[in-house]
Amino acid sequence: MIDFALTPAETELRDRTAAFVRDEMIPRERDPRQDEHGPTEELRAELVAAARAANLLSPHVGTEYGGLGLDHRGKAIVFEEAGYSTLGPFALNIAAPDEGNMHLLEVVADADQKERFLRPIASGAARSMFTMTEPDGGAGSDPSMMKTEARQDGDDYVINGRKWLITGALGAEVAIVMARTFDADGTDVGATMFLTEADAPGIEVTEVLDTMDSNAPGGHSVIDFEDLRLPANSVLGEVGRGFRYAQVRLAPARLTHCMRWLGAARRCHDIATEYARTRQAFGKPLSEHEGVGFQLADNLVELHACRLMIWHCAWVLDQGDQARTESSMAKLYCSEALSRVVDRSLQILGGTGITDRTVVRKTYEDIRAFRIYDGPSEVHRWSLARQVVKG
Amino acid sequence: MIDFALTPAETELRDRTAAFVRDEMIPRERDPRQDEHGPTEELRAELVAAARAANLLSPHVGTEYGGLGLDHRGKAIVFEEAGYSTLGPFALNIAAPDEGNMHLLEVVADADQKERFLRPIASGAARSMFTMTEPDGGAGSDPSMMKTEARQDGDDYVINGRKWLITGALGAEVAIVMARTFDADGTDVGATMFLTEADAPGIEVTEVLDTMDSNAPGGHSVIDFEDLRLPANSVLGEVGRGFRYAQVRLAPARLTHCMRWLGAARRCHDIATEYARTRQAFGKPLSEHEGVGFQLADNLVELHACRLMIWHCAWVLDQGDQARTESSMAKLYCSEALSRVVDRSLQILGGTGITDRTVVRKTYEDIRAFRIYDGPSEVHRWSLARQVVKG
Amino acid sequence: MIDFALTPAETELRDRTAAFVRDEMIPRERDPRQDEHGPTEELRAELVAAARAANLLSPHVGTEYGGLGLDHRGKAIVFEEAGYSTLGPFALNIAAPDEGNMHLLEVVADADQKERFLRPIASGAARSMFTMTEPDGGAGSDPSMMKTEARQDGDDYVINGRKWLITGALGAEVAIVMARTFDADGTDVGATMFLTEADAPGIEVTEVLDTMDSNAPGGHSVIDFEDLRLPANSVLGEVGRGFRYAQVRLAPARLTHCMRWLGAARRCHDIATEYARTRQAFGKPLSEHEGVGFQLADNLVELHACRLMIWHCAWVLDQGDQARTESSMAKLYCSEALSRVVDRSLQILGGTGITDRTVVRKTYEDIRAFRIYDGPSEVHRWSLARQVVKG
Amino acid sequence: MIDFALTPAETELRDRTAAFVRDEMIPRERDPRQDEHGPTEELRAELVAAARAANLLSPHVGTEYGGLGLDHRGKAIVFEEAGYSTLGPFALNIAAPDEGNMHLLEVVADADQKERFLRPIASGAARSMFTMTEPDGGAGSDPSMMKTEARQDGDDYVINGRKWLITGALGAEVAIVMARTFDADGTDVGATMFLTEADAPGIEVTEVLDTMDSNAPGGHSVIDFEDLRLPANSVLGEVGRGFRYAQVRLAPARLTHCMRWLGAARRCHDIATEYARTRQAFGKPLSEHEGVGFQLADNLVELHACRLMIWHCAWVLDQGDQARTESSMAKLYCSEALSRVVDRSLQILGGTGITDRTVVRKTYEDIRAFRIYDGPSEVHRWSLARQVVKG
Repeated sequence: MIDFALTPAETELRDRTAAFVRDEMIPRERDPRQDEHGPTEELRAELVAAARAANLLSPHVGTEYGGLGLDHRGKAIVFEEAGYSTLGPFALNIAAPDEGNMHLLEVVADADQKERFLRPIASGAARSMFTMTEPDGGAGSDPSMMKTEARQDGDDYVINGRKWLITGALGAEVAIVMARTFDADGTDVGATMFLTEADAPGIEVTEVLDTMDSNAPGGHSVIDFEDLRLPANSVLGEVGRGFRYAQVRLAPARLTHCMRWLGAARRCHDIATEYARTRQAFGKPLSEHEGVGFQLADNLVELHACRLMIWHCAWVLDQGDQARTESSMAKLYCSEALSRVVDRSLQILGGTGITDRTVVRKTYEDIRAFRIYDGPSEVHRWSLARQVVKG
Repeated sequence: MIDFALTPAETELRDRTAAFVRDEMIPRERDPRQDEHGPTEELRAELVAAARAANLLSPHVGTEYGGLGLDHRGKAIVFEEAGYSTLGPFALNIAAPDEGNMHLLEVVADADQKERFLRPIASGAARSMFTMTEPDGGAGSDPSMMKTEARQDGDDYVINGRKWLITGALGAEVAIVMARTFDADGTDVGATMFLTEADAPGIEVTEVLDTMDSNAPGGHSVIDFEDLRLPANSVLGEVGRGFRYAQVRLAPARLTHCMRWLGAARRCHDIATEYARTRQAFGKPLSEHEGVGFQLADNLVELHACRLMIWHCAWVLDQGDQARTESSMAKLYCSEALSRVVDRSLQILGGTGITDRTVVRKTYEDIRAFRIYDGPSEVHRWSLARQVVKG
Repeated sequence: MIDFALTPAETELRDRTAAFVRDEMIPRERDPRQDEHGPTEELRAELVAAARAANLLSPHVGTEYGGLGLDHRGKAIVFEEAGYSTLGPFALNIAAPDEGNMHLLEVVADADQKERFLRPIASGAARSMFTMTEPDGGAGSDPSMMKTEARQDGDDYVINGRKWLITGALGAEVAIVMARTFDADGTDVGATMFLTEADAPGIEVTEVLDTMDSNAPGGHSVIDFEDLRLPANSVLGEVGRGFRYAQVRLAPARLTHCMRWLGAARRCHDIATEYARTRQAFGKPLSEHEGVGFQLADNLVELHACRLMIWHCAWVLDQGDQARTESSMAKLYCSEALSRVVDRSLQILGGTGITDRTVVRKTYEDIRAFRIYDGPSEVHRWSLARQVVKG
Repeated sequence: MIDFALTPAETELRDRTAAFVRDEMIPRERDPRQDEHGPTEELRAELVAAARAANLLSPHVGTEYGGLGLDHRGKAIVFEEAGYSTLGPFALNIAAPDEGNMHLLEVVADADQKERFLRPIASGAARSMFTMTEPDGGAGSDPSMMKTEARQDGDDYVINGRKWLITGALGAEVAIVMARTFDADGTDVGATMFLTEADAPGIEVTEVLDTMDSNAPGGHSVIDFEDLRLPANSVLGEVGRGFRYAQVRLAPARLTHCMRWLGAARRCHDIATEYARTRQAFGKPLSEHEGVGFQLADNLVELHACRLMIWHCAWVLDQGDQARTESSMAKLYCSEALSRVVDRSLQILGGTGITDRTVVRKTYEDIRAFRIYDGPSEVHRWSLARQVVKG
């Protein structure tokens, strides 16, 4: 039955997260222990400790790994609140790519792999990276172009190739490596995912890219695999099923981006609203100028539409469906609508908007990539068009 | 608990309505018994009979008046399906203004008034009009400017004034009359609603306006009240509470517009999709041109967002809330997004789009007014801005 | 040298045209001698007579055929003014398709053809049609799909095929016929244009389409050619060069659409401005509401941008260039921007906007096709993209 | 007579500037002598020297001060080319605020002031600041709120107040100070502009703001005036005419922003075009995907519209008109359209777009402020609406 009511447990958790963010995160937003990529490890550890103390750590992970075992709807509620502060997702350990990696490991990894790789990430001790995207001419929007190769050599796989825009690589302890795989006979058996410690010989961060955003500890890097040798038990799931597992990770990971950005955009909207309430121009508060008020109204409507689309997609995922269409719609719509919300909020702030007086400026810079990663808008439109046409 | 599943009863009703529309309404869309305003009374009676036979008549009305007693969520589901054909709402007896008038009478009228006025409308026998809007300088977006006056004279009220854009006036049997009211002492006691037969002396349809739309039997008219004398039992509810009752009618009526237009826009989208699948240009089907496919994708996303916003607002109404903010958001968003959907659908059809080969052209003309009536977009943005600012 | 000043002669002509439109055309706009397609022949003759008396008839045609011999910039100035009234283009004899047909004949036809076909059109006595577009599966946006065939038979050509959306066919006296041509050996020698009286045996208007617009006398029709036999001297220019001549017609004809619609949209904007000045809402004139004022400001900017783009393209044409890129840009931008201007103007008028109280409603209906004919926006975007990419 | 042809001299200058930018500026764009605000003084001096060698220095300034004495149309042509590189405007000495300050001084300053203040700026030796904007509650979009005061004290003026977002303050040698002025009797005599060396006692840069852009050497600062004492000959023009002079500076300065940003956005478009030509996705170059090509087409059209609007406004200024309406239209349209061009260009680049691999990312960050400074879009819409309404 169509219902938009939160359960009492969800309401309690939402309010508790909101209070945690308000009381513990927002006051720390100007903590100097942040570099051009995000919080340093020292600050991150402190944030994680605070979330653990508030019983909010890794809420998306099963209780056996220290989380709260939230379903997708539960995540929608909590992640939005966490995203309200630039630091919230790091505290709750729900930032990309770790959040998606934990989800993937929880669904696909075997028991040993979970102990070795999932547990330290879920506890907030370790960070991880997901190495799929490649530089020009390799796997990007079109994953079929993947050039990185894993060649079976006895019981091992030897991996060579270059990845780029690998989020969080610098400082990560765990790596998920995606490579086109060739068996002992040299036959292409499809893409495979491998699990490894990130300091394995043959993995090198060759360049940390200078990017517009600053909400990814470790930044986005170029990674070279040079004769990275991994034993057979490094394979995540089964050989040749890498793209299928990528789908397992993809739709939910897309959606959690939407959730966090919804919170971040709502924050910008609230800041702009407060500014418009108090700042005078031409004889009355900004908020009484329709030119400003209409922007706030549009923000309200688009934030609302985003939330509904996220909730709906989360519900579809909770029914056990892959939600490919729904997550494409949510990602496409949220990335574009929330960008508009942040842009309007900045515009309302006037000159203040382009300074670091508020988090709006940082959010503006950070959110730009959202229309690109996890499938640029154009790829989602193309994919949705195919859904429409095939009916 | 957040849930988007229909109940089995809702699913059955949705499917039954869809089948009714597909099998009984769409084939009749070219029935010549339609004039520049919509179906003639003869055709309308036939449509109503068909819906009654399918047990789909007046589904929003309580069972004691022959309806199905649907709640707002139920209406959302059924009305969307009905709107899929230009004739569906007339068959189900859920077109404006009758649908909103029935809702108002059901909530506010006394037992006698219900027998006399609601029952014939609910049965599909009679049409009704709601006379609130006035020409330039009178009540429009700003109802406080109402000029029509009712003056108490003994036990009667004598009403004078001019209304315009009164939908369905020509041929209506029931009128709801809104007037600024003065008691026997000449004191302004606020706006009052009155109920009367439409052929009462003193009510005259002085002009049927030539308008762009053609989905309102009787069209939109100018009405003159000249010494219209109504007894005290004509008062709907209480004297002086007219604007409060207008609110009772307003939010749900707005929302049912959204529901019907959602169906109509989905129809246009389906027509455009089918055209894009089959029509070739530059060596491949139109649908394989991204420039067309992207428009279909945007349609899909916006139809989805509209449906979610409607369902959410319906749920709020079902909780007993007035849903003023939610219905403003839904009306603003749906009127603009669905207009875009229809516009894109027409564009995809190319030259065919501007002909009467499909219902897209009529829908394009009909939907334009939706951004104006029940509060133009600007008034909703202004009202929502106030909500945002007061927090 | 960059210059935006009109010459004294241009200024005089502009002002004279504006005065003619204001004094002679606008007062006639409600003349009942108009049907669902536009002015009847009786009214049209009267309008033409008025323009002739004002020395404004066929200003784009050479003086030897009774025109003013304006260059493209001169046309830009005069046609905008003429477009300010729905009747102006008919009076000046510059409406589509006649205007473009006259241009084509002036450039390509031989002396005999000019006497026989151009002179009566230029004098306003005869109307003409241009038969290129075909129904589904034939020549539309992609002219290479043309199915109508002309087969050489002795000295004659025998033409068979179906055209549709042929503007002005009903009542036209002259027809330009475009057909894929096969020589006596049955070899496809490319598309050819033929000139003929429209009442030649073998030309039949089989259906007058019911379309959204009403600014084309005779409407838009389906035309069947059944063994239409034309002698060799019917060939316009040379055999096989039909598409090249279509280009001759295309860019200027596109641009004159922009000119006329610029005037029409400016008219709507002026009507909305006047309404906003005088109509009160919420305690002040509409115009003092930023939500309305901002729309007027956007109108002003877009009208300005359209005019500049038209003037620029006209200048390029006047340099002897085909202006394919410039006319694509102008057509794409003007059709979309002017549609927005008209839409905003209608929105500002509120309920009045959808009635026939002003010409805004008719303009809204008429202008919709402008984003489709002479290349829909998507085809222009595709063509411009190719220009960009090839550099 | 409407003409869009460049004179031979303009063509030569345009081509020479383009060659200079291509050969001398673009190769230097990664010069490490740039900080978070822009080129260091060392690099800037080198750029200026290069422009002087190319005879392109300060082209907007009169020849008596070493410039080329270009009119506004000439500036439009040269500044667009200079803006094509992030370094071009610094080399040609046409960056804000110096360019506008030079223009102001040339028009208003007396001979002594020109020698002392204009000459060193025009030669590229000195930088300058224009101190008008104030922090919250002071002069911003609404200059009437100015709080900084100059009080006459004998022959001197003593100035107190706080300014903010003062571009280039750090390192500037010349300051133009705007203050509400009170004469010896304490009467408010209106705003006045004063000229002074920037190291005068009583001027302090109290904070260099951390802003999103990085194209203003010295950044944007908070400036405190504390008993800044200036002699009477410091007055620029006349006492009390500060706002009038601000208008002298405003329209042309707005327009030169448009010119430079046009070049910058065209650069981004060219980078995106080149990327789209070469990068493959889904089996063909990006450029052959309509979803990408259509964005390039829209870029082309909007760049064209911006150029025309700039040229037109420049021509109006060259006629001696203040061009308030035209410069508002140009600023509003260019700031919004060019932002879209840069945004689309970044989107086409995908992940590369958010890295420093191209200047698109920096341009995206830098251009955001353009919709805010020199009047945010909302103020221009409001001002244009007033023009429309008063007719």
